[in-house]
Amino acid sequence: MPSAEIIAVGTELLTPDKSDTNSLWLTSKLNEIGVEVKLKTVVGDDPLRLEEAISDAYKRSDLVITTGGLGPTEDDITRACGAAAIGKELVFHEELLEELKHKFKAFGYEMPERNRQQAYLIEGAKVLPNPNGSAVGMMHYTGGKALVLLPGPPREMKPMFSDHVLPTMAEDFDGVVVLRQSLRVTGLGESKLDEIISPIYTAFKNPVTSTLFSRTDIEVQLTATAATKEEAESLNNELAKKIAGKLGDSVFSMNGEPMEVVVGRMLLEKGKSLAVAESCTGGLVSKRLTDVPGSSGFLLEGCVTYSNNAKMARLGVPSMTLDSHGAVSAETAEAMAVGMRETAGSDVAVSITGIAGPGGGTEGKPVGTVFVGYADTESVFSKRLHLPGDRNLVRWRSSQAALDCVRRQLL
Amino acid sequence: MPSAEIIAVGTELLTPDKSDTNSLWLTSKLNEIGVEVKLKTVVGDDPLRLEEAISDAYKRSDLVITTGGLGPTEDDITRACGAAAIGKELVFHEELLEELKHKFKAFGYEMPERNRQQAYLIEGAKVLPNPNGSAVGMMHYTGGKALVLLPGPPREMKPMFSDHVLPTMAEDFDGVVVLRQSLRVTGLGESKLDEIISPIYTAFKNPVTSTLFSRTDIEVQLTATAATKEEAESLNNELAKKIAGKLGDSVFSMNGEPMEVVVGRMLLEKGKSLAVAESCTGGLVSKRLTDVPGSSGFLLEGCVTYSNNAKMARLGVPSMTLDSHGAVSAETAEAMAVGMRETAGSDVAVSITGIAGPGGGTEGKPVGTVFVGYADTESVFSKRLHLPGDRNLVRWRSSQAALDCVRRQLL
Repeated sequence: MPSAEIIAVGTELLTPDKSDTNSLWLTSKLNEIGVEVKLKTVVGDDPLRLEEAISDAYKRSDLVITTGGLGPTEDDITRACGAAAIGKELVFHEELLEELKHKFKAFGYEMPERNRQQAYLIEGAKVLPNPNGSAVGMMHYTGGKALVLLPGPPREMKPMFSDHVLPTMAEDFDGVVVLRQSLRVTGLGESKLDEIISPIYTAFKNPVTSTLFSRTDIEVQLTATAATKEEAESLNNELAKKIAGKLGDSVFSMNGEPMEVVVGRMLLEKGKSLAVAESCTGGLVSKRLTDVPGSSGFLLEGCVTYSNNAKMARLGVPSMTLDSHGAVSAETAEAMAVGMRETAGSDVAVSITGIAGPGGGTEGKPVGTVFVGYADTESVFSKRLHLPGDRNLVRWRSSQAALDCVRRQLL
Repeated sequence: MPSAEIIAVGTELLTPDKSDTNSLWLTSKLNEIGVEVKLKTVVGDDPLRLEEAISDAYKRSDLVITTGGLGPTEDDITRACGAAAIGKELVFHEELLEELKHKFKAFGYEMPERNRQQAYLIEGAKVLPNPNGSAVGMMHYTGGKALVLLPGPPREMKPMFSDHVLPTMAEDFDGVVVLRQSLRVTGLGESKLDEIISPIYTAFKNPVTSTLFSRTDIEVQLTATAATKEEAESLNNELAKKIAGKLGDSVFSMNGEPMEVVVGRMLLEKGKSLAVAESCTGGLVSKRLTDVPGSSGFLLEGCVTYSNNAKMARLGVPSMTLDSHGAVSAETAEAMAVGMRETAGSDVAVSITGIAGPGGGTEGKPVGTVFVGYADTESVFSKRLHLPGDRNLVRWRSSQAALDCVRRQLL
């Protein structure tokens, strides 16, 4: 599988507010023709570092793409550094200068003298036309190695790459497809999960498997490489099924969907309506469910009963339950779910009460203690959770646990 | 000015959908203590490239920071590559292993065997404690050169860097101080805003001013450079006051605070309680308010009355109002706010009803039509908004408008 590196050039990309996004688009295009991006660099208008970055990348990888630094100012050093990095000269092209002058004239301007440097190409490089700006790009391509210099503005870079680089690359780096599939898992720790599934996935060189730990769940990402999309899909599917077989109900999505989408679809399929009563999560579960377009088809309503009064008045939680067990208890969670279901007239109700922190923890119920309550026509129960993390994370994990509770009951 | 390079580690960061954002935060912190970021790299779980990236960076720059790859799985290779890159060994630390076992035990788990690798440090490195996860970081610091390995998850990385790396660095690298201050503005378009304030800020070379357009508001960012923090602060303050003077009530924060924090504090200060009734935002306003620690001091409760039934049963919205004006109307928004305030017994109530899309729009009320209702002891009113954007953006902007409505009434 051919390898690529992408180098974004520009001091502004090294400030706290700017990201290089060109490389994301380039990565998706390269993946489609079976080229894997192995490293990305962001470097400022710094000749030594830029030359070194290009030269190192060129040694390691089949394809090196730079974006930015092809303009007419003194900061625009990519042409010179690119040439030096691969041991070539810059060559002046009279016809490029004429074209440039022509472009400026078409807009009623005289070409400023400094734009003259845009008429230089790396010795032996092919010019990449730029209908949307003054900077042409270039591609130096010999012995299976390519160095491609593209302009920074996306509306110049993208068509140049699609129209003039991709066709050449697709022909030469022919025919592999790289396809990703994500399994999403909940209710297992990262190392526990890896212990269970590593004996399976380490036996496969293709797809390659990596496990990513996000805020609430673990994603098992499979990346298959094959001659066709169908073949890559079937490679991914085969391993995905083996992994899912070992993990059982803990896998909530075979294709990267978030929990709220999965739960929403299950409710719709089974024709069940849901209502949600939340305390410490403050509306997060409702918010997540209503992120899903069409949520009015399964969500009847939600109550954020933050105070004890609200728990009693809205949901009919008995004051005795609150007095003898506390607002954060299995009894209160169950009473919230039962009351929510009755007052909303839903098939299913789920509730959350807990201590998200930073304050409010006690010895018996430290920060992170959360109860999830559940009620439907047949059963009422609750689960006690002890969730690690800060306020934000405890709340998020609580919401995930509540949604997962509904999911497992619907299975 | 000392130079730094940042290396983000993880194959997932080389996919089309994932960006390294840790480096943006790190850059802002490093700039504050006068360290300039000269190069950034994203590298996969690829030992040869990672070792080379660290070793090259270490040769070129005073400070090298890596994020990610400190977990317990086979993919987690930063420890080993970091050690090799600077020609050191990894050393096992019994006391780290004991701590790890203890952490797992506290959550009721046995430590899986593979977490053992997290008890290794680069020879001569100082341990950086991680109260929020299993992976400790490390800092190897000699002869004015530092290699710092941090975990990838931001909530682990950030406190580790702030508490254990910055203090050391700030002492050693004493150069100029670069300080940012953010004014957050709502209810004005970007070009309108620039028209008003550019005559002011263009007269200042220091601080430098930039306006950033985010999902819901405009941030006016001032960046002062000075010899001391106090001096930089006073430069920023002077310009900030001039700008705020011109913009008036549209500035909701002088220091980058989000709207929900500002509203929460105002409610606490005035001793007023709030209740929230939401339809299309589905709990987002309650969720945002309860993001703020101590929100139980000002938020009594929230209702997500998604269906018409819920609007009637929970909030007493008259069926005639719904029938004659529709669920998305000024009359319904006001009835929701009044009903919410009465049933919750709060001082203030705010409501939202609207069409977030993608479906549900009509000619008279297209997607993006949102009504915000308000009720307190003295007044009841509503505002009609027409918000651009997709479902997510319409919901977010609605929540911002509702919170801003409460803010302006409290002023």
